Amino acid sequence: NAQECFPVWLDNYKHDHSVHWLNFHSIDCKEEIEDFATEMGLHPLSVEDIYTFVQRPKVEEFDSYIFFSLRSLEPNTTSLELKKEQLSFILGSNYLISFQEKKSDHFTDVRERIEFDKGRIRKRGADYLLYKLLEAIIDNYFEVIEDVQQKIEEYDIRMAEEDDHSLFKEIEAEKRQLIELRQVVFPLKELFGQLEKLNNIQIDEENKYFFSDLRDNCLSLLDEIESNKSILEGLGNIYYAIQGQKMNEIMKVLTIVGAIFIPLTFIAGIYGMNFDNIPELHYKNAYFYCMAVMIILAIAMLIYFKRKKWL
Amino acid sequence: NAQECFPVWLDNYKHDHSVHWLNFHSIDCKEEIEDFATEMGLHPLSVEDIYTFVQRPKVEEFDSYIFFSLRSLEPNTTSLELKKEQLSFILGSNYLISFQEKKSDHFTDVRERIEFDKGRIRKRGADYLLYKLLEAIIDNYFEVIEDVQQKIEEYDIRMAEEDDHSLFKEIEAEKRQLIELRQVVFPLKELFGQLEKLNNIQIDEENKYFFSDLRDNCLSLLDEIESNKSILEGLGNIYYAIQGQKMNEIMKVLTIVGAIFIPLTFIAGIYGMNFDNIPELHYKNAYFYCMAVMIILAIAMLIYFKRKKWL
Amino acid sequence: NAQECFPVWLDNYKHDHSVHWLNFHSIDCKEEIEDFATEMGLHPLSVEDIYTFVQRPKVEEFDSYIFFSLRSLEPNTTSLELKKEQLSFILGSNYLISFQEKKSDHFTDVRERIEFDKGRIRKRGADYLLYKLLEAIIDNYFEVIEDVQQKIEEYDIRMAEEDDHSLFKEIEAEKRQLIELRQVVFPLKELFGQLEKLNNIQIDEENKYFFSDLRDNCLSLLDEIESNKSILEGLGNIYYAIQGQKMNEIMKVLTIVGAIFIPLTFIAGIYGMNFDNIPELHYKNAYFYCMAVMIILAIAMLIYFKRKKWL
Amino acid sequence: NAQECFPVWLDNYKHDHSVHWLNFHSIDCKEEIEDFATEMGLHPLSVEDIYTFVQRPKVEEFDSYIFFSLRSLEPNTTSLELKKEQLSFILGSNYLISFQEKKSDHFTDVRERIEFDKGRIRKRGADYLLYKLLEAIIDNYFEVIEDVQQKIEEYDIRMAEEDDHSLFKEIEAEKRQLIELRQVVFPLKELFGQLEKLNNIQIDEENKYFFSDLRDNCLSLLDEIESNKSILEGLGNIYYAIQGQKMNEIMKVLTIVGAIFIPLTFIAGIYGMNFDNIPELHYKNAYFYCMAVMIILAIAMLIYFKRKKWL
Amino acid sequence: NAQECFPVWLDNYKHDHSVHWLNFHSIDCKEEIEDFATEMGLHPLSVEDIYTFVQRPKVEEFDSYIFFSLRSLEPNTTSLELKKEQLSFILGSNYLISFQEKKSDHFTDVRERIEFDKGRIRKRGADYLLYKLLEAIIDNYFEVIEDVQQKIEEYDIRMAEEDDHSLFKEIEAEKRQLIELRQVVFPLKELFGQLEKLNNIQIDEENKYFFSDLRDNCLSLLDEIESNKSILEGLGNIYYAIQGQKMNEIMKVLTIVGAIFIPLTFIAGIYGMNFDNIPELHYKNAYFYCMAVMIILAIAMLIYFKRKKWL
Repeated sequence: NAQECFPVWLDNYKHDHSVHWLNFHSIDCKEEIEDFATEMGLHPLSVEDIYTFVQRPKVEEFDSYIFFSLRSLEPNTTSLELKKEQLSFILGSNYLISFQEKKSDHFTDVRERIEFDKGRIRKRGADYLLYKLLEAIIDNYFEVIEDVQQKIEEYDIRMAEEDDHSLFKEIEAEKRQLIELRQVVFPLKELFGQLEKLNNIQIDEENKYFFSDLRDNCLSLLDEIESNKSILEGLGNIYYAIQGQKMNEIMKVLTIVGAIFIPLTFIAGIYGMNFDNIPELHYKNAYFYCMAVMIILAIAMLIYFKRKKWL
Repeated sequence: NAQECFPVWLDNYKHDHSVHWLNFHSIDCKEEIEDFATEMGLHPLSVEDIYTFVQRPKVEEFDSYIFFSLRSLEPNTTSLELKKEQLSFILGSNYLISFQEKKSDHFTDVRERIEFDKGRIRKRGADYLLYKLLEAIIDNYFEVIEDVQQKIEEYDIRMAEEDDHSLFKEIEAEKRQLIELRQVVFPLKELFGQLEKLNNIQIDEENKYFFSDLRDNCLSLLDEIESNKSILEGLGNIYYAIQGQKMNEIMKVLTIVGAIFIPLTFIAGIYGMNFDNIPELHYKNAYFYCMAVMIILAIAMLIYFKRKKWL
Repeated sequence: NAQECFPVWLDNYKHDHSVHWLNFHSIDCKEEIEDFATEMGLHPLSVEDIYTFVQRPKVEEFDSYIFFSLRSLEPNTTSLELKKEQLSFILGSNYLISFQEKKSDHFTDVRERIEFDKGRIRKRGADYLLYKLLEAIIDNYFEVIEDVQQKIEEYDIRMAEEDDHSLFKEIEAEKRQLIELRQVVFPLKELFGQLEKLNNIQIDEENKYFFSDLRDNCLSLLDEIESNKSILEGLGNIYYAIQGQKMNEIMKVLTIVGAIFIPLTFIAGIYGMNFDNIPELHYKNAYFYCMAVMIILAIAMLIYFKRKKWL
Repeated sequence: NAQECFPVWLDNYKHDHSVHWLNFHSIDCKEEIEDFATEMGLHPLSVEDIYTFVQRPKVEEFDSYIFFSLRSLEPNTTSLELKKEQLSFILGSNYLISFQEKKSDHFTDVRERIEFDKGRIRKRGADYLLYKLLEAIIDNYFEVIEDVQQKIEEYDIRMAEEDDHSLFKEIEAEKRQLIELRQVVFPLKELFGQLEKLNNIQIDEENKYFFSDLRDNCLSLLDEIESNKSILEGLGNIYYAIQGQKMNEIMKVLTIVGAIFIPLTFIAGIYGMNFDNIPELHYKNAYFYCMAVMIILAIAMLIYFKRKKWL
Repeated sequence: NAQECFPVWLDNYKHDHSVHWLNFHSIDCKEEIEDFATEMGLHPLSVEDIYTFVQRPKVEEFDSYIFFSLRSLEPNTTSLELKKEQLSFILGSNYLISFQEKKSDHFTDVRERIEFDKGRIRKRGADYLLYKLLEAIIDNYFEVIEDVQQKIEEYDIRMAEEDDHSLFKEIEAEKRQLIELRQVVFPLKELFGQLEKLNNIQIDEENKYFFSDLRDNCLSLLDEIESNKSILEGLGNIYYAIQGQKMNEIMKVLTIVGAIFIPLTFIAGIYGMNFDNIPELHYKNAYFYCMAVMIILAIAMLIYFKRKKWL
């Protein structure tokens, strides 16, 4: 249905009372969009809003349509930063226009379902279509969470093995993803609450149930975000604990080696001195006695460390 | 009562106005459940919800029944992760249908009590039966808390002895259990609040008191969760403090040994040099004076460390 | 007044319209209490509640009485855990029955005051007596706080001296006391709010002021709990800082000794080598020059450390 | 006006309808105050409240007056603890009685202004006078904040230089001051809110504006407290970071010295051995080759450390 | 329009019903401002408020005008502290007077737009002009956020390289900026809420939409502040983790070198002793056997460290 030449679409939607959906794969050609907006009778402010990139989702009621814009966030397979995209919607009584920042496959799934099940959407109206599209976006949010959860399981395993602080950095990067997601979902929750309360011809009373469902999804997302953030913080704590314990182990090795051999080296040093008169040097078995003392000292040290549970 | 062949059950429940309970031990045979649902006049969405696994508990009112689903969590004796199961309920005016994800013994206790005390449940109605089942699930939540409390006592003891970071990991695992539990109990609290306010023929005014009781239990659980989380955090802090102190002890041993013997070894090294002209080497008691100096130095060091309270 | 044989008491309270107080020093003899409850016309659920130990305080209205149960917490002079006791009250129009878990002296003070000032309590009614008993319990809560504050002062002093992690453990134990207290006081606050709103013949409009006073005390307690928890956290931070600084000091000593003597020992080692041809060994004043170089090196090191403010 | 003999004051205030202010410089002479209270028709509870020291400020309405008590907190130039004082006020229709715990100069400023500008206060009434006194107390709270801010600037500078943990202790002491202040200001805010809503002849509708102004001041104070607490926490973090970095530096020095000279000393030790048959010892330039190897080793180590950015 | 001589302006604004804007570039000449205020019929309190520097923004309604004051915050290119300035506005029915603390270019942009588009502002009224000025100030707040975000990206890169604690200090300084900003924006949000509810002739019903827009901006700012604070805290954690890891690396080098060479040096020391009777010394290949043992020992150690993943 999407991206036909405008005149045809405009013609279609005016004469046909079934639902029309127009999707812009990019918003690069501003001029044409402006022309189209004038043709559709959209407020200039709405066009401006399509081009203003903000964090908070936004809903605005106009006389003949509702303007709606939000951020899509998706996990990024190649980097630790989320894929972000601003999406805007214009919901009229029998049409829905969506604007994507760049060509992406957000709505493939929905489009397929539409092909398959034209009847239902036609019957339900443009607001139901909007609900379907928003649901697809919120599903992406859930994917971010799932991605984080998968990463957490991965970190649980990597934790004990790796020593690199890159692990810690990744944990913090995941936390940032959750912070970013939270910044989008939190106002979205309120926004769906607003949408439910609107008395607007564009949204059917009957379909409001669906928007309340989206609101529940947002609540669920916020729960998940908080829980996963806590778990990531816990992972960070474990990292510190492991780091501290590795330090302890390293120092134990040095201390045990040092505490045993430094005194012994000193004894060896004494009998390496060149004083003319060191009586011990001339006793027959002095060397063997000396070695015995050294071994006893070393064993005493080992027992001491054993008692201290350092070994 | 449970899992008789459906036709008999259906026949029974339609002709008999006493309470009927049907429990599905598993939800593997989706087709049969769908057939049964059609027979019962259940909404297809309800069947779908039985198969959708979500974190948040959910209640939905339909014309002839209330749909209710939540997560059961139980402590796991063999691992640090909780046993999880999704449970769904359909409460009609004179019947209750429950769906378990897998065969488990959640309701054994309730079933026994029913055997024993059929009269009371019959008199009270299906909503009272639902209350009894929910109570059994919430009792499991309390078991999670008790399990955590027991672990805390165990950790208190293990703390001083063990040096392994596995203890710290366990503490964090317990915290995760609490986070997970919180994620279930928090929305449950709100849900029971909703249930109290419903004007529905399925729930007797008189029995609403029981649901308000369950809500109180949830509040109690949330209090316990927060307190135990704080205590676990405190344990984590103690772990860090002990780790730091062990480090200090390790370093003290190395430093004391090093600070005493490294200078002495140097002195021994001096008189081990092979210069032709080292006058001291030829004094008669030089060796003994040298030893005396070394001993005095060592004692001075020991006094210094004693003063510093390192010994 | 307390613990006379029941029949006499029952007889008394029925014929005499002044206030009657019956205190159970223990709840071990369950059977007798059940008999007594039947005699008094108490609901079986109330008796059950006396024997159910829960964290959250609870109030329940019955036709002829109000049931009230809460936890008493007292500082424990011999251990770091609080003394806990469940107390239950049954407030009728002209009687008050209290149940103590074990024989303790919670109410000695109140009893003495009653002996002394019978008139006032008689005039005021059973609800005033309840208020007096609850006040005594809340005074115990304040004692917990005072105990914590005293400990904080003690820790402030011990902090710099001690090196043992037992101090840190004690800090965390005090925090746990506050967490436990909070868990009791927080719902208590809400409960007194409920009590104020009750329209019940058992509580005089005039005496409601007293319960609002108890609520204020709870608020005050919660403030104190939060403040003292923050202060204890601060103490924990200081502990870490001191631990870190001690570590730094220990390492400085080792580093200074090592950095001065390890290079010098190396120089001594060179001239201790047995090569046939080491020309320096045969210079007349080589030994003295060598010593001079060593002393200069040591002084240079000391100046370096002085500049680094390590000395 | 203050502290004339009571009879004269009493006489004055009864016959003269202008505003009367009586300030008690201390509350040591309890008996006289009790006599005076009886004379004035004050409730015994109010006198008791003057002598009860509590953290939370308190307001109580009586028939002919309002009782008001709060804590004054002032920065202490000689110690890190705040100067505390309990102040109580009794506001009648044409008089104000204030009680100070000890002789202090809280109200000097106000008294001077009164001397200077008698007219205004007389016209405005006793509630305006109370407002002026409360303002003076709240100004002290702001001084605590300013004192903390000054300290923060001081710490910013001292941070890098000092190594003593006393700095950290001071930071925590400042935090405690803020916690203490918060404990007073937070309920005060609510209290002024209550005062605004009172329908009481003692407070003019017109003057309520002033109390709402005080409430704004409290909000401002709470903001400042939170911000400064966060900043102090930040300073604590910096302290830890610096401590950690100093540790790193100390260990680097030891490690560099150790890693260079310990292997070299070992080489020297080899050729210091007295085996009969060590061929190298007899080569003509062996000593010089050996020295060359040592120097190359040392340089290699230095390059390694340079690459690691430890130098 | 701004800063003409007052009489002309006064004359103008009285006779002309279009919008008049007077901007004070500085508030140094207090006397003249006071004169002007009298002329305009402003309340003396308003003039006082212009000269009182407070953190919280403030709005006050007077009979003929609304007083409004807030803090402007701007990122500072040369230092880590924000540029602060107090701005006050007086909004009459057809005039707006603004007071800047010091000559700055806050409003250049707005002034240019006014020059360009006089018509619109004239039509919309003085409240629209106020909106435009406030928008300019809030844009500055957003610049602070953007500045912080840029810094965060910078820190992400610098983190791994630098070892200086100055980085940590900068992170804390950025946090302070956010704390400061929060202290301004949070009450501002509430203030715009108040403004919306005011029934005042100075603000058109129609223009209230703009103030609700500013409130949304404040909410957005608060979201951003919290998110960025969390990210900065995460950066601080990474710093600690890197610091800890560097420490571990440093200690590993020392420990490996020490654990290999200290025992070897001891062996060398043994055969450097001058006992008359050390049989090994006289074996023919003793030296070579000794060297072999040493090499084997060193290799064993290396394998041990390799297994421990220290190499």
